[in-house]
Amino acid sequence: MLPLTGLKVLELGHYIAAPFATRLLADLGATVVKVEPPEGDPQRGWGSKHNGHSVWFSVHGRNKLSVTLDLKSAEGREKALRLAAWADALVENFRPGQLERLGLGPERLHEANPRLVIARVSGYGQDGPYRDRPAFGAIGEAMGGLRHLTAHPGQTDLPPPRCGISISDDLAGMYAAMAVVSACWGRDRAGAEGKGTVIDVDLVSSVFSLMEGMLPEYGLFGWVRQPAGAAIPTAAPTNTYPCADGKWLCVAGNSDLIFRRLMAAIGRPELAEDPRFATNADRCANVAELDAAIAAWTRGRTAAEAEAALQRAEVPCSRLYDIRDCAEDPHFRARELVMEVEDPLLGTVLHPAPPFRFQGVPPRAMVRWPGPAAGQHNAAVFGEMLGEGGPGRRSG
Amino acid sequence: MLPLTGLKVLELGHYIAAPFATRLLADLGATVVKVEPPEGDPQRGWGSKHNGHSVWFSVHGRNKLSVTLDLKSAEGREKALRLAAWADALVENFRPGQLERLGLGPERLHEANPRLVIARVSGYGQDGPYRDRPAFGAIGEAMGGLRHLTAHPGQTDLPPPRCGISISDDLAGMYAAMAVVSACWGRDRAGAEGKGTVIDVDLVSSVFSLMEGMLPEYGLFGWVRQPAGAAIPTAAPTNTYPCADGKWLCVAGNSDLIFRRLMAAIGRPELAEDPRFATNADRCANVAELDAAIAAWTRGRTAAEAEAALQRAEVPCSRLYDIRDCAEDPHFRARELVMEVEDPLLGTVLHPAPPFRFQGVPPRAMVRWPGPAAGQHNAAVFGEMLGEGGPGRRSG
Repeated sequence: MLPLTGLKVLELGHYIAAPFATRLLADLGATVVKVEPPEGDPQRGWGSKHNGHSVWFSVHGRNKLSVTLDLKSAEGREKALRLAAWADALVENFRPGQLERLGLGPERLHEANPRLVIARVSGYGQDGPYRDRPAFGAIGEAMGGLRHLTAHPGQTDLPPPRCGISISDDLAGMYAAMAVVSACWGRDRAGAEGKGTVIDVDLVSSVFSLMEGMLPEYGLFGWVRQPAGAAIPTAAPTNTYPCADGKWLCVAGNSDLIFRRLMAAIGRPELAEDPRFATNADRCANVAELDAAIAAWTRGRTAAEAEAALQRAEVPCSRLYDIRDCAEDPHFRARELVMEVEDPLLGTVLHPAPPFRFQGVPPRAMVRWPGPAAGQHNAAVFGEMLGEGGPGRRSG
Repeated sequence: MLPLTGLKVLELGHYIAAPFATRLLADLGATVVKVEPPEGDPQRGWGSKHNGHSVWFSVHGRNKLSVTLDLKSAEGREKALRLAAWADALVENFRPGQLERLGLGPERLHEANPRLVIARVSGYGQDGPYRDRPAFGAIGEAMGGLRHLTAHPGQTDLPPPRCGISISDDLAGMYAAMAVVSACWGRDRAGAEGKGTVIDVDLVSSVFSLMEGMLPEYGLFGWVRQPAGAAIPTAAPTNTYPCADGKWLCVAGNSDLIFRRLMAAIGRPELAEDPRFATNADRCANVAELDAAIAAWTRGRTAAEAEAALQRAEVPCSRLYDIRDCAEDPHFRARELVMEVEDPLLGTVLHPAPPFRFQGVPPRAMVRWPGPAAGQHNAAVFGEMLGEGGPGRRSG
């Protein structure tokens, strides 16, 4: 038994945000029916393929049932409404207004099932002047305030980099999943009186929600937080340093005790005695000299060597792991963060564990099956779940 | 009524991850009691102050009740156990083992309340070889695979920048909140039979969960995803371009139709006819020339001018918003993403709206009160909620 065993979720999603929300719900045990167009979710075309099948989708679609429907046809719409009548919750990420144009707007869905929790994920939200703009993850990062900060402060002509992942879609998906379960909890707590609702989650607000104390500081003082590269302006030394093999080492050496250990480890114990570096404030004021001393030491070692030496000295640090480092790391393996999954479409594939684990439930038990082929569960869902006399037969 | 109205949550948290989890639960309507040491959560010392009070905490602590306890004293532990008996869920982020040393380990908590859902947030998880290492957000980013990607591919001596926010703590807090509500849903669905559980969430797994298809691609092909700066290697042109005022413009111009509009908007319609740029694959192969043409145009305009011109041409783009841009933006204002809140400690402060909104609930109704002073609710919680005959009097 998983926490959400028995929760029924319908996904009218594509690409990242809504499918990621339902992937998390599925990992938590929900029964998720993903509706795809007959040609499949276009996300299946992203990234590499093996045997003609999407590799990413093995993870992105795991634990879901896939059915194909043409939502523009009367028959497709009718089947979608029957699925909505079956479901506890629906998650969609069409452009605002599109669900209504398909005859599947919230009012129609609530006619079919007044208890349905409907989560709508979009780029900018269901209202406001930008609601009709096309949604792109990069623009969610830019407008939500993140991309301005993920940058160096005027030291390079290179543009601020992307996070390298679809972070704004991921955040919106996570918030949608959280809001869906919360609405289901509240609805079910109210018993037979409980009603469905409509939830509005968007990429921009999701990114903007992580801007810490910046908004009240701007309001009170007019301060505008600027990027700080790999450093933290109020803590020193903490930065990322170059190593002999071209890799990087991230070091958090800013507490008084750790700073002393760090200076000893790099062979510069006299700096720990120097009054210019006595307190964190002193170190922040003279950080360039400290960073140079640390970098001079890291440049003489590979990242793995430098990491091992500082870890022996109990200085928090980590080389910047690439996916191979993650996959081969003993802690990741010991925690079953990396698991081998048999995929009928791909062979043996590596899956990341769900990011939450529950007492008595091995991570492996949370990955029930890999992402299915498009429409793989048409017969099971339409024939059995929604068939005559089946459990989903609640509406016309 | 909010979705989680009636859910009772106890926070034994400090700094970011656990307090952010309970902040989200509080925004969703839960009653959250935050336990702080007599001197207050050390997070209150981060960032700027106004009238001697933390500005960030106005947001970070909002909608919570604050009580102060010395958990190392017998009286403090006893009161914590009474709060645990009252609560549906507990969220903590001590180092692994610390709660046990305080006499408040999961077994003891479940003696006081067998239905308690206990979420434990840590740097590396509750087991595995790294569990006792000190947790730093930067190291969660580095070890989870994010920092390697948020970077330029070998074009600069500058280190890969931070995200500029506590992203790994935020992600872990979001997953903890999601897992808590899910466990409560499952427990309550089981009725009187429902039992509590223990949830394990960590910074590294949380970051690692967002690595898209990288892990299965590594397993199948040995591929190691490398950073790509501000571009996307498989889509062109999409990048971030420099403007005349030193600001940056993010442009997503990679679909065939948008590409044509973009080339017309920058006065280079002939490039849209050039066979070297006919398809996305062609454009990816010759992206340097396109990026140079776009940058030549953006360099002649401020970011706001360039953004306005491309938006008129229906080319998805955004300048990189700083916090002032967010605070003053008409869409943010229209959506009440930025709201003025009266804070008794600080005066009028700006708060970001919760990142999820629910039908019929204005965002303003989700911000019930700003972050309280440490111990502000001692009398209310210990005197009324847990008083003789009070609703929490279930144990001891």
